[in-house]
This record gives sequence, structure tokens and C-alpha cells, in this order.
Amino acid sequence: MAKTMAVNAGSSSLKFQLLEMPAETVIAKGVIERIGLGDSIFTIKYGDGEKYEVVEDIDNHEQGIEKLLQALLDLEIVANFDEITGVGHRVVAGGEWFNHSVVVTEEVLEKIDRLAAYAPLHNPANAMGIRVFQKLLPNAISVAVFDTAFHQTMPNVNYLYSLPYQYYTRYGARKYGAHGTSHRYVANRAADLLGKPLVDLKLITLHLGAGASITAIKDGKSFDTSMGFTPLAGITMATRSGDVDPSLIYYIQEHENLSNDEMLAILNGKSGLLGVSTLSADMRDLLDVQETNEHAKLAIDIFVNRVVKYIGQYVAEMGGVDALVFTAGIGENSVPLRKMILDKLGYFGIKLNEENNNKRGNEIEISTADSTVKAFMIPTNEELMIARDVEAAKNENN
Amino acid sequence: MAKTMAVNAGSSSLKFQLLEMPAETVIAKGVIERIGLGDSIFTIKYGDGEKYEVVEDIDNHEQGIEKLLQALLDLEIVANFDEITGVGHRVVAGGEWFNHSVVVTEEVLEKIDRLAAYAPLHNPANAMGIRVFQKLLPNAISVAVFDTAFHQTMPNVNYLYSLPYQYYTRYGARKYGAHGTSHRYVANRAADLLGKPLVDLKLITLHLGAGASITAIKDGKSFDTSMGFTPLAGITMATRSGDVDPSLIYYIQEHENLSNDEMLAILNGKSGLLGVSTLSADMRDLLDVQETNEHAKLAIDIFVNRVVKYIGQYVAEMGGVDALVFTAGIGENSVPLRKMILDKLGYFGIKLNEENNNKRGNEIEISTADSTVKAFMIPTNEELMIARDVEAAKNENN
Repeated sequence: MAKTMAVNAGSSSLKFQLLEMPAETVIAKGVIERIGLGDSIFTIKYGDGEKYEVVEDIDNHEQGIEKLLQALLDLEIVANFDEITGVGHRVVAGGEWFNHSVVVTEEVLEKIDRLAAYAPLHNPANAMGIRVFQKLLPNAISVAVFDTAFHQTMPNVNYLYSLPYQYYTRYGARKYGAHGTSHRYVANRAADLLGKPLVDLKLITLHLGAGASITAIKDGKSFDTSMGFTPLAGITMATRSGDVDPSLIYYIQEHENLSNDEMLAILNGKSGLLGVSTLSADMRDLLDVQETNEHAKLAIDIFVNRVVKYIGQYVAEMGGVDALVFTAGIGENSVPLRKMILDKLGYFGIKLNEENNNKRGNEIEISTADSTVKAFMIPTNEELMIARDVEAAKNENN
Repeated sequence: MAKTMAVNAGSSSLKFQLLEMPAETVIAKGVIERIGLGDSIFTIKYGDGEKYEVVEDIDNHEQGIEKLLQALLDLEIVANFDEITGVGHRVVAGGEWFNHSVVVTEEVLEKIDRLAAYAPLHNPANAMGIRVFQKLLPNAISVAVFDTAFHQTMPNVNYLYSLPYQYYTRYGARKYGAHGTSHRYVANRAADLLGKPLVDLKLITLHLGAGASITAIKDGKSFDTSMGFTPLAGITMATRSGDVDPSLIYYIQEHENLSNDEMLAILNGKSGLLGVSTLSADMRDLLDVQETNEHAKLAIDIFVNRVVKYIGQYVAEMGGVDALVFTAGIGENSVPLRKMILDKLGYFGIKLNEENNNKRGNEIEISTADSTVKAFMIPTNEELMIARDVEAAKNENN
């Protein structure tokens, strides 16, 4: 059967999943970490819980991907490379050029390179991953799946900032959002679980991980999302501040004698849960000590407050909501967080099903039968979404 | 009868109202514009629609206030200065030191001076106004009424940003809000109109002028507000941007080669309705041409969208709302704007009474009898609130 590789290439890492398609069975997944940093760690999980791990220097992505492909052969995960008929690549920034996944051409690659202006750490790594796979698997179809594409349906009222309009025309200064593949996946799953077409639903999807974004989905399309021009904006995150009065940032810079780059690094890396708690960026650590540590409690409360506020925004903006969907690290695993959030939304007709909320693992409805707005926990699966987009591209090409 | 002066001193202007207290009758009001800029304009309206206007150079606030007091005598508005037993001064920034109006002492004045760090254009002018009136009317009680004081009841979850906590302890980096006197006034009026104690109500007050802020009022207290560390944050305003992804601001600065001060000036002075419309900062101009001018329409739609989103936030955060209150320039006078906003809130149970919404001038309920959430238009009256605070201080001192 044909196999599809879903790839997420970072600046010093590469994550992948190999799926049997169209069966959608994961046959192997793994990660190469510390590429170019010495003592690289290469891990594959496959078969019946088997694990392959090597620590050795991997100098660059090309070397890493060569080793990965060789390992697939050696471990007999594939019999030959022709079985891998498609490779789908996560690309962070698609700007206004890409509103859906596309087969990678030279022109597409050039655009991904140019969009590095919006995602200087990510797009170059994504492009490198594409180029290496194209070289090593020249017969496989190559598809780019953009984090921003799903949000390209937002109306201009929602994506524009109240800035001089020329900044939009000159620099594309607008909201692009992120986590689009995840929001798209869980929205479709929620529609399935509700037994209704997605186009008939108003959903609010909550991708709550270290990076976190909330999306309003109306008429089957992204209508608004909490991340902005970059992933810095929106709700409180692990180390990102989310929304802040820009005047305050300049005020802090002046008093701390910080350059713009230094301040931006603090907003991205030292703020959020970490900044408020002064303890940890990990929600689990904060939950563990919230009874005794005032700062941990405060960070949790602020996180919950911002989530509740964004939900309120999107209910108002869409004129209602049929269901909320929790996903990603915190959204999937933090039973107390989901409870804290949903308990504050009784006014909207949401009632938590505590028993279901305490269950772990699989997708589940966590609202009661008489809850007028439904709530779900749905594990995200961006890799599957990528593989499906590759599959669709294969079918279109045939 | 005792008279009280309500004063709002700006860097080159001074507005005042003289009220008969406790009758709350306005006996004169006026403004001195272009202080220190040559061709200063000094206007008083008094009596039965009479108007006094002089254009002459007024070099500084002391000279202006001397002329003002002399004019009150000459126009026989007061028989002697002892009639003016109190002067209340609007002060923009009260920081965390002032959660209500206070009689001005040397210590208070010193704190107002120090709080100039938060309001460099306003607090020094406010302090100057206080000092000159104290010198010229040494027997009158002098009261400082802070724009931020009403918002000091916000819980820390709402006033803190998700930044490193040390910035709060070191620099008071938090949300202070503004327009507190206005929000407080209209909230109290709304409670009267609803015939319920303010402490039992959940209100959202919308002060929509050139500067605009929205406040959630719960248990009779400010619970959250849209302006932030400074008045830049929150909804789209005449020339202020409201909320923006901080990363985008740095991105624009880099591409336009702008310093932080230059960018801040653009965010405060060239953004908002003016920036988006590329036409005018005045909502009336935009409404006039919205049928034919796409940019004007876009600016209006963005303004409405941001107002609706903040209302949604506050409904979610308070777990409901009993009434919305529109006030200030746009809120009081823009019939179409109120309609556009309320028409989007049907989901919350708000029904517009079109006939009442079309009436102008006095405070009025603009929701229908069967609207589950009420809406009001209430003209603000910060001067009256200031005079009342002076009156309360007089009574406490006696």
C-alpha cells in the first residue's frame, strides 16, 4: 500500500510520521533532535511498540533525513523507497499566498523562502526539509501544508489591525494566526461527533499547548483567531505574553534599557505562565503547587481568565456557539484546567460532565446531555491532516 | 449658596464648570484654549444662554486662571471669591496610590507629580492647575479626582499582564484604565434608571469618544476595563490603534526605520479610525460616506467589531450582564453606531428599541420592554461627579 510521510522540520530538529494511506494507519513515527548541535538523538517508534534510538552527531538536515530513510529500510518498515509516494511538510508561514495545501513547485518553494520574513526561525527550516526530501525521494509527490492557510478565510474586519492602512498594503501587516492544521482537524472531528455538517456549526476550538490559540469557526471556516501577525498575540501561553498594551512594552524597555530584540525575546521566552508564576512554564508544575504557591495560582487564574475572555469574544462575534473543542497538550490532558474554564461558562449554557472530563486518552464529549452548548476533548492530529492533504493532492494529480 | 469649580487642566488648555452645590446647578462653564501658544481663546457660557469670548495671548495657566476668576466677577457670575468653596480637579493618573478622590495635601501633590511617569502629558498640567487654584483661592477646599481611581477595584487576575512579575513590582506594570469618573457616573445613573442598587447589577459601560473605553462593572465596582497601562490599549479609537500584536509593531518599525517614540506617536495619533479609513478620525465623517467609501465602511465595521468583542469578553467574565450603557461623543450621539452594535448582540437577549434610539439629548432606555438585557444612552457628566466628590469632601471635613 502507498505510504505518506508527514514532516515537521525545525531549525535543529525534524519530526516525522509515516502513514499507510488511505488506511490512515501510522506505521512509524520519530524525531531527530539536536541536528548540528552534536550528540544528536534519533528515535523511531514502529511496529508493535518497538523503539529504535541512536545518539550520534548529525551535522545537517540532509544527513538526518538520509539516516532516517536508511533506518526505515534497515528496520524493514519499508521494503523500498518507492513505497513512499508522498511527503507532506508543515510550513509555518503561508502569508496571503496560500489558503490551502499545495503541491510544491519551484514557485511555491520560492514563496516559502520569501515568507521567511514572517517566520524567520521556521520557514527556512521548513524549506530545507522540503528540498532534502525532494532530492532523496524524487518520485514522491511533495505537498506544503501551511499553519496559516486555514485562517485565510477570516474577513478583513477580523484580520486587520487598526493601524495606518498602508502597513497592510506595504508589509502585509495583518493577523495570520497559527495552528491552522490543528484547528481544522479538531473542527472536522467535532462536526462528525455532533453528526452535523461543519458548515452548519459555530465552533470555538481551543488549541492549548505551550503555544496556544483559540479559533472561532463559522460556516465551516476560520472566522477569527487569537494569534496575530505572529504567535505572540492572544492568550497567556507557556512563555509568551499574549496581548499587552504596546505602550507598556516601550515603558519597560526604557526603564530596563532593553533593545527591541531583547524585549521581544522576553515577551516570547520569559513571559506567560513562566513570567507570572516566576516558577515554571509548565501548567502541570503550576497545578501541582497551586494550593500553596500564590504565584502559581495567579498564573493559572490569568490563563483561565484569558481563555474565558476569548471564548466570550467569539460567542459575541459569531452570535452564538454550538460547541467548544479542547485540544493540544493542556487542552487534551489537563482535567482541572478544562473544569476551571467550563465552570466559568455556565451563563452560555455549558454544563460540564465531570465523569467524562476525568477520562483520559480518546476523544470524548465532556458536557452533559442537557448542556445547550456542547464541549469536547479531541486529541489533535496534525500529521494525519498533512497525510490527508497529500492524499488529496495525489488524487487530484491522477 | 456654595459654589464648586470642576477643573480639567490640559497642557495648553483648561476646561471648567462652576456648579451651585448641593443643588447641582451649572451656573457657568467654559474653556481656555491655546494657553502659551498665542491667540488664546477664552470662552464662558453662563446665565440664560449668554456667551463671553475673548481672543488674546494667555502665556500660562496662572494668567489664564486669573483671567477666568476676574471674568466670573466682572460678569457677575460670582459676587466674591469666597462663594467658591471648593475646586475639584481631574487628574489622569492616580496609579495604585489613589482608589478614590482625595483632598489635596502637599503629600498628594507630590504623588501626582511622581505619577507623571504614567501620564507625562497630563499629570504635570493637572498638578499645575491645582497649584494655581490653591494660590488664587486659598480658602477653597481642593480635591483631586482621578481617572484611574474607579478601576482600582479590579482583581489582580484582570489588571496584571502575562509579563515577568518583577515588572509589576518594579514599575507598576499593570492595567490602570481610564475614564473612571465617566464610567462611575453612568453606572450610577443606570442603576437609578433600573431602580436597583448598583451593587446588585452587572453592567457594561461604553465610553465611546475620540478616546474610548469599555468597562465591566460587577458588585458596584469596576471589574475590568479595556484601556491598559495607558489609554492606547483596547478598542479602535479615533486615532489610537487599540490592541495590536507587539511583534507587528517591531516589524513595522524595522521596515519603516522608526524609533520607539515615533512608532508610539503613530499608534496614538495616526492609527484607529483615521489609520484604517485614511480619511478622518471623526466617526461622523465616516458615517457620512460609508455607502460610497470602502475604507470608511471598513473603519466603522472594525470599530463595531472591537466593541462587540469587548462586550462578549465582559459578559463571559462576569457570567452575564444586566445592562449596557452608551456614553461620550459617539456613544451619546451616534444613532447608527448604537444600532450597529446592538443589532449584533441579539444572541445575548438584547433588542433595540429603534424609536428610542433615534431620540437625542436626554438619557433614555434604548432596548425594548422584552429585551432581557437592557441598553441605555446616558450623557456623561464628569464635572458633576467631580463636584459631588468635592461636596463629599467638604462634608467629611466639617
